[in-house]
Amino acid sequence: MTEIQRSAESVSAFGSMLERRWQRGNFVCVGLDPEYGRLPMAVKDGHSREDALFLFARDIIDATHDLVCAYKPNAAFYEASGDEGMRALSRTIEYCKTQYPDIPIILDAKRADIGNTNLGYVSWAFDLLHADAITVHPYLGGEALAPFLERKEKGIIVLARTSNPGAGELQDLLVGEAQEPLYVVTARNVAERWNTHGNCALVVGATYPAELQRVRAAVGDMPLLIPGIGAQGGDVEATVTAGQDSRGWGMIINSSRGIIYASKEEDFAQAARQVTESLRTEINKYRLSA
Amino acid sequence: MTEIQRSAESVSAFGSMLERRWQRGNFVCVGLDPEYGRLPMAVKDGHSREDALFLFARDIIDATHDLVCAYKPNAAFYEASGDEGMRALSRTIEYCKTQYPDIPIILDAKRADIGNTNLGYVSWAFDLLHADAITVHPYLGGEALAPFLERKEKGIIVLARTSNPGAGELQDLLVGEAQEPLYVVTARNVAERWNTHGNCALVVGATYPAELQRVRAAVGDMPLLIPGIGAQGGDVEATVTAGQDSRGWGMIINSSRGIIYASKEEDFAQAARQVTESLRTEINKYRLSA
Repeated sequence: MTEIQRSAESVSAFGSMLERRWQRGNFVCVGLDPEYGRLPMAVKDGHSREDALFLFARDIIDATHDLVCAYKPNAAFYEASGDEGMRALSRTIEYCKTQYPDIPIILDAKRADIGNTNLGYVSWAFDLLHADAITVHPYLGGEALAPFLERKEKGIIVLARTSNPGAGELQDLLVGEAQEPLYVVTARNVAERWNTHGNCALVVGATYPAELQRVRAAVGDMPLLIPGIGAQGGDVEATVTAGQDSRGWGMIINSSRGIIYASKEEDFAQAARQVTESLRTEINKYRLSA
Repeated sequence: MTEIQRSAESVSAFGSMLERRWQRGNFVCVGLDPEYGRLPMAVKDGHSREDALFLFARDIIDATHDLVCAYKPNAAFYEASGDEGMRALSRTIEYCKTQYPDIPIILDAKRADIGNTNLGYVSWAFDLLHADAITVHPYLGGEALAPFLERKEKGIIVLARTSNPGAGELQDLLVGEAQEPLYVVTARNVAERWNTHGNCALVVGATYPAELQRVRAAVGDMPLLIPGIGAQGGDVEATVTAGQDSRGWGMIINSSRGIIYASKEEDFAQAARQVTESLRTEINKYRLSA
């Protein structure tokens, strides 16, 4: 039995939450990336910045909760609004966990420091904000990430091949005797060494389906968070074909701007639902077991 | 003229601030990593968490300001205290910039996301908190970091070879035909491609003097932020010998726990001064031009 098989047998609480969503055909993750300047006037009028950021996300969550596998608030968009933003983030997560406790919350914060320091980020993400999972950078190695990895019940989602145009500068470098791309080595290290508690996942961009396929082949049925659908231009068929696991599952397919800014008018939440529903239908059309 | 030489000629506002500190023989950077649980009772008694975190840092800044080249608050330690922590961080930076405007503040936040998202972190670090520099991960490449790199007046300090025991897992992987370690390729990419505004620096741990020497050889006189002195066990002589640039400058030598927790009693700020002063003296003993 390989390391990958062993770890796949023990599924974290985060993994179990995901599987229950996938069972219902839900693979869309809605990325909550609210820029205050882009919020509909209907949300901004008569509300504080904090309230507007919260109400925008709340209405989108209420309109899409039966269609998604996860929500993914990105910390950067909230930090840009300072104290008010951070309170809006905290209220958004609290609201979702109270109203829809079955939906995992992925805090997209892309943190990572040395071990001693990561304890601070762990407290912030899991004990203060109560996120179910967090995204982290791999550059410092698995040893530094121990404070994250030891939280067995949480999901630790490591960047492997990111969705941005310049992702290949470091991630495609050929490393070691086998001259494999860095992102493949990162993915395999996560699967074989870091995932002792079965709580790891990987980020691989939908904008790179060939790389997505290569990661899937390297890591078995590990969950993959796949950003880049929608505004970034990732193709759904190519993504699902390359990204699904042996069960036709394993995908957290994220769209942020394409969903949350589907309309700039009062009907923004309804429009977000329509886009989410279309994406959900399209994903299921291409799944193995659909 | 090589790219490295060209970039070294244009020094950012952050770089100029550093050079003025180095001219006075100041190479110590005090890492402000306050854990609430470890603060002296004298600071906690009768104060809110926010006030205690602020007052602790304020007293250390007041006691050491004439001896340092920079202060480096680490965001993780403040985020661990939620809203109160973030307000304490903001007040600490504001206090230092008001009282000691010549001392650069490095926000050790180790951020990096795709370009669009990095705009949020840029707003947070530079426009809300008014830090002079920030630490960032290299994994997404220079294209993603453009929103940081375009802030010409700020310092963008990229992780190359970190100080943690497991740093080598990815950073030492041998890359390409030349079979050079990833950290060297990262350092060279920063120096040759990302540093068009002369505002880049690199993180290289004091715990790895051989790697530090190799980075110095690869990047000319670029400033290096060197953590790992003190609690992490880095050796001062080896660090200065390997890390100094052609002028005997170029080093931001950080100690956090070794300075801020030098005493747990009421004399913590005085004790921090003594350790800072000893470290300053030791560094200058080994410098080329000392």
